[in-house]
Amino acid sequence: MKRIVKESIGEQIYSILKEEILLAKRKPGEQINLRKLAEELGASIMPVRDALKQLVDEGLVIRKPRVGFFIRNFTKQEVEEIMEMRKLYELYCLNKYFDKIDRGKLKILLEKSLDEKDINQKTKEFDELDENIHDLLIKVSDNFYLINSYNNIKNLIIILRHLIEDEVSLAREEHTLLIRAILEGNKERAIEILENHIDRVTNAIIKLF
Amino acid sequence: MKRIVKESIGEQIYSILKEEILLAKRKPGEQINLRKLAEELGASIMPVRDALKQLVDEGLVIRKPRVGFFIRNFTKQEVEEIMEMRKLYELYCLNKYFDKIDRGKLKILLEKSLDEKDINQKTKEFDELDENIHDLLIKVSDNFYLINSYNNIKNLIIILRHLIEDEVSLAREEHTLLIRAILEGNKERAIEILENHIDRVTNAIIKLF
Repeated sequence: MKRIVKESIGEQIYSILKEEILLAKRKPGEQINLRKLAEELGASIMPVRDALKQLVDEGLVIRKPRVGFFIRNFTKQEVEEIMEMRKLYELYCLNKYFDKIDRGKLKILLEKSLDEKDINQKTKEFDELDENIHDLLIKVSDNFYLINSYNNIKNLIIILRHLIEDEVSLAREEHTLLIRAILEGNKERAIEILENHIDRVTNAIIKLF
Repeated sequence: MKRIVKESIGEQIYSILKEEILLAKRKPGEQINLRKLAEELGASIMPVRDALKQLVDEGLVIRKPRVGFFIRNFTKQEVEEIMEMRKLYELYCLNKYFDKIDRGKLKILLEKSLDEKDINQKTKEFDELDENIHDLLIKVSDNFYLINSYNNIKNLIIILRHLIEDEVSLAREEHTLLIRAILEGNKERAIEILENHIDRVTNAIIKLF
């Protein structure tokens, strides 16, 4: 049975657009045709424009006066800076809070990861796993300012991650290795795996810019 | 000759209040008596209220509905979290960008520091030196997101630093040692000094909460 949609039209438009941007289905730099978008969504222009304004506030959409709306783009330097922050935060937390990382949650993540059927597809499940692992590392700090700073760049990290398409099985393997190293209590190995993982992803993304 | 004040009344009130808060002349948690404050400043209530609202937006003042305005207070955990971020950012930059730190600027800072007459007073010059040294370490990263995250907590760091009064000559000595270690190219020693400096200041502040 189909479930009732409780979100307002504006909220639905916002959610749909945000997901398309985060999944890089709409590519960074791409112009948004307001009229066409409203037609595709089956909505009028006004709520679409409101949703876009909200996304401008969040830094995911750029508005150029007298030109229109564009998906946020990145310079090569921005990519490097964002990925440097990611590496800084995640490695710091892994190193500093290694013993506090929730092993129970990690085991569940590992099982889910091994349960995945199509290991070459970038499925919704893969995305969730990916996000959960990296979130787990950050939240263990229990530091409001650190979690907040990470969240400020998290959406940008998600977009960048979706720009590289061919590394799903590799990323999956790296995640599995990382979780296993943590569960085995092998901190040095875990740090090495995470560092290599982030470096590899960073290099793959930077090539696109 | 006295110079002309070009700032508007609102801007002047804002600047005066902000400085008093940053220098901890108004203590965290202290209630602000709007009428009394306006009188002291020789202003009417309205621009004072506007300045306070601006400081609320910056997180330096708290507004409790139907009670009034208060100087932002800290819990022990907040102090720990803020100082953890400071340590994370500064040590990371010192370690990662050691060779890129501007030696010319450091030499000027060192000379200024040695020129100071009253080494036990927390003078404006001491504050500037202190801020300049720590800023120099952060800016060398040339990472917008890192500099931005640091700036977001910088005012809180400044307030906390001003809560401990008795460590001026010690801090001055530590700054001098840090600069000398960097100028000598002794990275390990510089990291050790900076780490001990931040730990010592953190412990002194935490005792107050």
